[in-house]
Amino acid sequence: MLSKNRIKYINSLKIKKYRQLHEAFVVEGAKSVLELLDSDFEIEFVLVTQEFQQKYASILTRHNLALETVTPQELEGLGSFQTNDSCLAVAKTKENAFLSPASGEYMLMLDDVRDPGNLGTIVRVADWYGITKIVCSRDTTDIYNPKVVAAAKGSFTRVNLYYTDLTQYFEQIKHIKQPVIGAFLGGDSLYEFKYPASGGIIIMGNESNGIGEQVEQFVTDKIMIPRFGAAESLNVGIATAVMLDNMRRQVPL
Amino acid sequence: MLSKNRIKYINSLKIKKYRQLHEAFVVEGAKSVLELLDSDFEIEFVLVTQEFQQKYASILTRHNLALETVTPQELEGLGSFQTNDSCLAVAKTKENAFLSPASGEYMLMLDDVRDPGNLGTIVRVADWYGITKIVCSRDTTDIYNPKVVAAAKGSFTRVNLYYTDLTQYFEQIKHIKQPVIGAFLGGDSLYEFKYPASGGIIIMGNESNGIGEQVEQFVTDKIMIPRFGAAESLNVGIATAVMLDNMRRQVPL
Repeated sequence: MLSKNRIKYINSLKIKKYRQLHEAFVVEGAKSVLELLDSDFEIEFVLVTQEFQQKYASILTRHNLALETVTPQELEGLGSFQTNDSCLAVAKTKENAFLSPASGEYMLMLDDVRDPGNLGTIVRVADWYGITKIVCSRDTTDIYNPKVVAAAKGSFTRVNLYYTDLTQYFEQIKHIKQPVIGAFLGGDSLYEFKYPASGGIIIMGNESNGIGEQVEQFVTDKIMIPRFGAAESLNVGIATAVMLDNMRRQVPL
Repeated sequence: MLSKNRIKYINSLKIKKYRQLHEAFVVEGAKSVLELLDSDFEIEFVLVTQEFQQKYASILTRHNLALETVTPQELEGLGSFQTNDSCLAVAKTKENAFLSPASGEYMLMLDDVRDPGNLGTIVRVADWYGITKIVCSRDTTDIYNPKVVAAAKGSFTRVNLYYTDLTQYFEQIKHIKQPVIGAFLGGDSLYEFKYPASGGIIIMGNESNGIGEQVEQFVTDKIMIPRFGAAESLNVGIATAVMLDNMRRQVPL
């Protein structure tokens, strides 16, 4: 039987302020929790149904976890998602550590991506294309938001995010001579663009306003995904995938 | 003041059965309604706030519409979305008309795409890449579902969908000798694939199960988007965009 204190603690972690206070976040559902166990995140405790515990007994024992058995009903009451009926973990958040592209490496940068579903999708897409570093503006949605974690489908365990003031960030990395490639409506055709083997930064902007003026001044290459029909824009998650797909065709890992 | 009958009618159109019975559907929000007015859809009536009516007076008059002025509160009560506070239209659905690829044309096919957000995204992506025909399995989500219409951001007015039994469909078009390209985990690399100038069909499968066995037997080319990291899969909307982007680089309009 879950204690009231534990229920209160888990619910508090849905709010950014309390995630920062406790340096902890919630991971829901079998796929995401199994990927979490397979990562280097420090785990506080895991709530499991009896069924889940039996099915994954060997994995759960191997990790020497603080386990508590609960009913599917208790889990559903706690989770943010209806489908969360097998397990829930609370893990420590990671330090907000500085990231920059190594020589030959491509890194993503997000200027105020606000929608949790979009951020989760971008993390999943980054993981698919072998991108492990994302630098985000301070107003970009928190990676530990439960909706972001859910949309990232486990990829949040393999992709690192660093939240910072982007203008200051560019000052810090001005010795780095790699290109800064921004996705702009009206930029040069992506199909004509040659991604340098040197690596660099690929910037995606806010859902409504694109890349802000403050950040735009640091962009060395303004690129647009060619349009053949009449849709006004592409979703930022979709645009990220197309930018990275074109990059990887030229600069494979 | 909205009549009870009209409120009841609009609410009924959130359900597929009533959309089919009345051959009508709901379009919400300024962007989608303006695109609807710019299309060949037959419009039953439009509810507008006074503010919207003044802002778009010339457009609304030009179309000789059955207009009713309502309050933002009345609109919010009716809509499926919190942001719908300026206008709502009811339009006639289009006939479920047969579609096949012309010579040199690429067409999409969807085998049981169930998530409304995914279908809307696919319609928007198709519109971006100049694809105007999508053939869907009968279990693919209804294009006139309000969540699909919202996610398609107006592109539903330019892309035609035909719902049918896909196995029977392939029998009907067996005289057409164009390639049938399917996205499969484990297929040949998309980066090696040459999209023929003849045009053809690009098939995307269900979110969990991919392309079904019944449909798979008609596929002439099994293609996979190359993976460089560890994510298990890509969202079907993302995968559609990458497949179409690679096609258009080789076969522009």
